[in-house]
Amino acid sequence: MKIKIINPNTTETMTKNIELAGQKFARSDSEVYAVSPSMGPESIESFYDDYLCIPGVLEEVIKGDKEEDVDAFVIACFGDPGLWAAREVTSKPVVGIAEAAIATAKLLSPNFSIVTPLHRSRKITEEVLHMHGAERFCRSIRTTDLTVLDFDKDLKKGLDVLALTSKAAVEQDRAECILLGCAGFVTFVEQLQMDLGVPVLDGVSPAVKLAEALVDMGCKTSKSLTYSFPEKKSIKGFSQILQP
Amino acid sequence: MKIKIINPNTTETMTKNIELAGQKFARSDSEVYAVSPSMGPESIESFYDDYLCIPGVLEEVIKGDKEEDVDAFVIACFGDPGLWAAREVTSKPVVGIAEAAIATAKLLSPNFSIVTPLHRSRKITEEVLHMHGAERFCRSIRTTDLTVLDFDKDLKKGLDVLALTSKAAVEQDRAECILLGCAGFVTFVEQLQMDLGVPVLDGVSPAVKLAEALVDMGCKTSKSLTYSFPEKKSIKGFSQILQP
Amino acid sequence: MKIKIINPNTTETMTKNIELAGQKFARSDSEVYAVSPSMGPESIESFYDDYLCIPGVLEEVIKGDKEEDVDAFVIACFGDPGLWAAREVTSKPVVGIAEAAIATAKLLSPNFSIVTPLHRSRKITEEVLHMHGAERFCRSIRTTDLTVLDFDKDLKKGLDVLALTSKAAVEQDRAECILLGCAGFVTFVEQLQMDLGVPVLDGVSPAVKLAEALVDMGCKTSKSLTYSFPEKKSIKGFSQILQP
Amino acid sequence: MKIKIINPNTTETMTKNIELAGQKFARSDSEVYAVSPSMGPESIESFYDDYLCIPGVLEEVIKGDKEEDVDAFVIACFGDPGLWAAREVTSKPVVGIAEAAIATAKLLSPNFSIVTPLHRSRKITEEVLHMHGAERFCRSIRTTDLTVLDFDKDLKKGLDVLALTSKAAVEQDRAECILLGCAGFVTFVEQLQMDLGVPVLDGVSPAVKLAEALVDMGCKTSKSLTYSFPEKKSIKGFSQILQP
Amino acid sequence: MKIKIINPNTTETMTKNIELAGQKFARSDSEVYAVSPSMGPESIESFYDDYLCIPGVLEEVIKGDKEEDVDAFVIACFGDPGLWAAREVTSKPVVGIAEAAIATAKLLSPNFSIVTPLHRSRKITEEVLHMHGAERFCRSIRTTDLTVLDFDKDLKKGLDVLALTSKAAVEQDRAECILLGCAGFVTFVEQLQMDLGVPVLDGVSPAVKLAEALVDMGCKTSKSLTYSFPEKKSIKGFSQILQP
Amino acid sequence: MKIKIINPNTTETMTKNIELAGQKFARSDSEVYAVSPSMGPESIESFYDDYLCIPGVLEEVIKGDKEEDVDAFVIACFGDPGLWAAREVTSKPVVGIAEAAIATAKLLSPNFSIVTPLHRSRKITEEVLHMHGAERFCRSIRTTDLTVLDFDKDLKKGLDVLALTSKAAVEQDRAECILLGCAGFVTFVEQLQMDLGVPVLDGVSPAVKLAEALVDMGCKTSKSLTYSFPEKKSIKGFSQILQP
Repeated sequence: MKIKIINPNTTETMTKNIELAGQKFARSDSEVYAVSPSMGPESIESFYDDYLCIPGVLEEVIKGDKEEDVDAFVIACFGDPGLWAAREVTSKPVVGIAEAAIATAKLLSPNFSIVTPLHRSRKITEEVLHMHGAERFCRSIRTTDLTVLDFDKDLKKGLDVLALTSKAAVEQDRAECILLGCAGFVTFVEQLQMDLGVPVLDGVSPAVKLAEALVDMGCKTSKSLTYSFPEKKSIKGFSQILQP
Repeated sequence: MKIKIINPNTTETMTKNIELAGQKFARSDSEVYAVSPSMGPESIESFYDDYLCIPGVLEEVIKGDKEEDVDAFVIACFGDPGLWAAREVTSKPVVGIAEAAIATAKLLSPNFSIVTPLHRSRKITEEVLHMHGAERFCRSIRTTDLTVLDFDKDLKKGLDVLALTSKAAVEQDRAECILLGCAGFVTFVEQLQMDLGVPVLDGVSPAVKLAEALVDMGCKTSKSLTYSFPEKKSIKGFSQILQP
Repeated sequence: MKIKIINPNTTETMTKNIELAGQKFARSDSEVYAVSPSMGPESIESFYDDYLCIPGVLEEVIKGDKEEDVDAFVIACFGDPGLWAAREVTSKPVVGIAEAAIATAKLLSPNFSIVTPLHRSRKITEEVLHMHGAERFCRSIRTTDLTVLDFDKDLKKGLDVLALTSKAAVEQDRAECILLGCAGFVTFVEQLQMDLGVPVLDGVSPAVKLAEALVDMGCKTSKSLTYSFPEKKSIKGFSQILQP
Repeated sequence: MKIKIINPNTTETMTKNIELAGQKFARSDSEVYAVSPSMGPESIESFYDDYLCIPGVLEEVIKGDKEEDVDAFVIACFGDPGLWAAREVTSKPVVGIAEAAIATAKLLSPNFSIVTPLHRSRKITEEVLHMHGAERFCRSIRTTDLTVLDFDKDLKKGLDVLALTSKAAVEQDRAECILLGCAGFVTFVEQLQMDLGVPVLDGVSPAVKLAEALVDMGCKTSKSLTYSFPEKKSIKGFSQILQP
Repeated sequence: MKIKIINPNTTETMTKNIELAGQKFARSDSEVYAVSPSMGPESIESFYDDYLCIPGVLEEVIKGDKEEDVDAFVIACFGDPGLWAAREVTSKPVVGIAEAAIATAKLLSPNFSIVTPLHRSRKITEEVLHMHGAERFCRSIRTTDLTVLDFDKDLKKGLDVLALTSKAAVEQDRAECILLGCAGFVTFVEQLQMDLGVPVLDGVSPAVKLAEALVDMGCKTSKSLTYSFPEKKSIKGFSQILQP
Repeated sequence: MKIKIINPNTTETMTKNIELAGQKFARSDSEVYAVSPSMGPESIESFYDDYLCIPGVLEEVIKGDKEEDVDAFVIACFGDPGLWAAREVTSKPVVGIAEAAIATAKLLSPNFSIVTPLHRSRKITEEVLHMHGAERFCRSIRTTDLTVLDFDKDLKKGLDVLALTSKAAVEQDRAECILLGCAGFVTFVEQLQMDLGVPVLDGVSPAVKLAEALVDMGCKTSKSLTYSFPEKKSIKGFSQILQP
């Protein structure tokens, strides 16, 4: 089976790490690969970034569906940007990493906290909780002073900050599981889990495993109403591939 | 004062009607004008359409802020597409028409129903209710078999369908106010209000009036955290104007 | 246009300040004036006070409607006392200042905190959030050791306490906007806004501006069900004006 | 023990029926009596009526506390008008009949429907559900074409309408218990219960029994914050007894 | 009248204390007695304990109904274990002590905090709040380092810990009433109430009083749907008394 | 990997069908087997049945953990009975079939309806929605006149009733996915999916796939607080295996 991970930002080092995380627990007969879109921001921290990455994400979904014989898609940014639209343009399963992390955490723990880069992104994270109906299971959202790219540049400092922030969530907010609220954090999972003594989840590995499960069961996205294919219409200023 | 209305779709007849609705109750010293973005879909009915209109909307906001000396913005599509991102790229007030219609309805009535074109758009409308915290005030969302462009093409048929659908909301769902869930419906407001005997609101006129009020009070969007300007970063594949 | 502000308490200095706040951003062709009812408490801090001010408020609404040719009403106490009943006795728009402050804050900020006088009034403020469906947008309600009249008597001390309390809301609760939860606080708005760096809103100015907007659009309260005029019946012990 | 029931409206035939319902299951050593206030409307159907009955209710509570050696109070209108203020002016227990009916229903059934006179009162009933946190337990609110006084005047017709409305709640809304949403309905309880085969509750009897229980346990209203006695202040236009 | 209290755990000293608490405010003509089931854990702290006590509780309800001529039942563990099933196997009223404590607190105070033994039991307590729809009224759940049996063994230490924990709820969480979240705490009620200055409620006394009230009114559990008697079927591995 | 499915009821034909459903999409290297407990009811329709099956379920979990070298558990009854307790007695993943069906449905569809046997079980189903935070995603719960065992006995009639009931959910409630609310329905999945044109999910297959995914990732249940192992204590009347 073929699973295409789309890193919605255009930072290739991050795409590479995400691919490794996606392959880490994949089955031997799953082909898992990650791409960045041709357009979009180099990191996603504001609503602005979030919306500007979506056309590129959708382009990659459509290409994967029509040209690459993909069986399922993973959108690898913790805001799950464009998830609902992606489900419109293909009938193959599409899984968001926030969605996957939350679904997995609920199977292992009565609650969780989310640790995510910038303070400004709190509302984006709150909206992701709403998307998946997980408000009641979230003990806290904890944010840091570092940007997404700061974490990518100084791994040692990033790990220290994440460890401290996660520890506060466990001890002060009584979180029994930690979700890493950024696809770029996949490199920190194992070390954090050892330090904290509670499950620590990035969303990329769980998303790939959920995608595998859906493909195994032959599941398709429901096309009866909300997620039916977009109506045929002209869409100005975008590539041919984005014309429905 | 200068108020720029952005019709997120690219259908110019609709933009013209929206402009008239925006000017209808505007103060004599307000300059109100409407534009369509250079890119995006000709109507907005799916999440796909919704996301693909946003880059164009944001471009118009940035241009309005930097080049046109605009005092406030109105986004004239009932899904309020890109509203939160628009508040990031300018400190001038930005008002969505769903937001304005809901805020106005709550001042006049204990509840309302929303009448909106296609059945598939129900979830988009539910998300708009969530954005503005209005779930509890909404008696029902009622949808029709007609597309946005169908209403634009056959006004008589459109009015009949809207009247019937609205009447059902009033009589069966006990709605005490009707919100027209599509910017294209501005031409039907007066006739419907006469027929139904309850307030009927499009969002365009209220949005312009709220924008005027905010400008009069010297209000600016809060830039302390969530809506602060996007971080400087490279955004591939978009025009210069969209580089933060 | 004629807008009548009703200060539900009987402290005339407060009524005067409220009138000034109401006139501050009003259009030049709006006549804005404030009154106190002939009956009721000198300040409103308990549910007891809240209920005992309502008959006087309703009397002023009815008089304004029948005798003073008023176009819209503002109820200027942050508990919005009697708002729903006021909408029953007139078809002219009635706006509460908590309602107006909340509606305005939501246009400018993803959230807000409310700063209000006495600790005991927290539940009254919680109920106001419920009335307007704004629970999810409120980061915190912060209260002080001072009564409403204390603030009126010692402005310097009042400002200091408000500044400190608001600062705590911004820094500890991450509020991105401050609502002043007492009509008597209108005199502190500008100073606080300068100190805090986030929007600070009293409700009086926004309520007047919303009232102007509703009148401009020709909006009337929905009279179809909940807010229809009270049934004709005898009401003992109240003035002739309160007989429906 | 002495329990004072206050019928917030001024219709004496209703007060008499309420007194009988209150005495029906009272213990032999409980003195239960009902009064109407000296001021207020003859029936309570709108928010207007609701607020105008409260000063009279509070007067009766204060008189009961200071002059009549009352042990507990019951407010006998299904909107529980003035309940929170009543708890401020005395430390003796005060029980609302909606509150009592809801609390009792929850002990007997997983859910209930409320049957109440006029269509316009739906929102008042919704607010009572909110007051007591019972939204989730309520299957439906069903209303009729008759006013409160209509039920008082034509008992036969009233019973027929109530029976039909309640039956619809049981059969169509799957209500497993019926609450009678008007103190005037106490005369219909037994007949309805026989017809419907599910528990039928008026609030008056349960309120008296809850009041007895609270007095037996020596319970007092919490005076630490919200329900502490109103601050001393001048209240214009009301009797001496209403000055705190 | 005969009221049977079932202490779901098998610790007899606790059963004795619970019986005393149940008799404390009971009417002179009420026969109140407490039993422990023949099977189940010696204390209830985990979901595991909670579920394993239920068969024994149900056995005692059925025996009470069929053999002991009981008029009403009280389940005396703050998780209200098996409450809904108990209502299926008898038509006599069944009252849980968490349910009774919560219902009583709401009559006396706008909110409460719950103080309960072990940190691990927080989710059990959250579920009890959900069962009774009381989430919004609960200021906080505060837990301790002591087990249920620790409190039983060292009363002095238990009281100190409870006093400290309750004080934190009152002062830091602004709780206006304290609920003791363990049937074993009945011995501490009076001392705590004196220390704290807000109402302190165990659930046992209130449950007996509610049971008395329901019996006085002739109330039966609704048998129309959810709580109808279990279908006849074979249940392996349980005593004859548990066969429906 | 070894996955043990526990059918909480004692009807062996059902256990056999559940085993087949569990194996249907399992990976070739997964050993999937199903058992019934030694004690408990032959079907689960009431809260009574639900609680009485739990000790047997927990026994099978403990045996699987200690004696059978199981890697993950599935509890195969749509009420997810004993799920939280099962997570206390083992650190291996435990998945409920309602939980799995809901998690899978959310990946494929914006909403779903649940079709479940008896009318009386509605509240059990509502509680399962609460357990997993899925209230908002559920369009409706639809119930039938048939018992669990009726479906097992007359497959043809069962399928007809299910098809009719599901069709109503799709057409009248706008469900875009159907969840089969009974483990016994696994035999109907394929036929229903063909008839309805929307995804139809039993929970058994998805639960096995989720269990596989969790085991692949090396996930363990969080043991830090809520799901830590039960305290050591005596539990009367149960087998040695149930002593913590």
